[in-house]
Amino acid sequence: MSLLSLIFGNKPKSAVQAKERLQLIIAHERNSLSSKPNFLPELQQELVAVISKYVSVNQDDIKVSLEKQGNYEVLEVNIVLPEPGAAR
Amino acid sequence: MSLLSLIFGNKPKSAVQAKERLQLIIAHERNSLSSKPNFLPELQQELVAVISKYVSVNQDDIKVSLEKQGNYEVLEVNIVLPEPGAAR
Repeated sequence: MSLLSLIFGNKPKSAVQAKERLQLIIAHERNSLSSKPNFLPELQQELVAVISKYVSVNQDDIKVSLEKQGNYEVLEVNIVLPEPGAAR
Repeated sequence: MSLLSLIFGNKPKSAVQAKERLQLIIAHERNSLSSKPNFLPELQQELVAVISKYVSVNQDDIKVSLEKQGNYEVLEVNIVLPEPGAAR
């Protein structure tokens, strides 16, 4: 899958092997007629809440970035999942 | 932003200009010790439900794909948003 290799293909393999990660990318392509407000920051909070129902997530292990470029708004959420059996 | 151009940079511009789109990518990097089940398909349904609270989404306009490669599970959700003022 080409997109996969583009996103993850150039990461060093040694240090990341032991951690489980979840990466969430939301891209909103808007046109010039759009009247919709920027809802991605609110959406992100709800999405993280949903994810937390499936895996235990430490708030400190969540990194969020929001970028705008032209017609695109892109929200990226990177979550390091706790190790199996780790005491939280 | 390089990731943005990698995802969207090679699309033809003429036909897609008028539509608003939302693209959601979730990548789960697992390690060999992982005991977590594959929760992405369930997660996807909840995420789409959350998104539907912010924008009106027609179920027919949602395309979902789930791929596995090595330690990665990647869920991709593409949503074409209805045009402003379009009759539903």
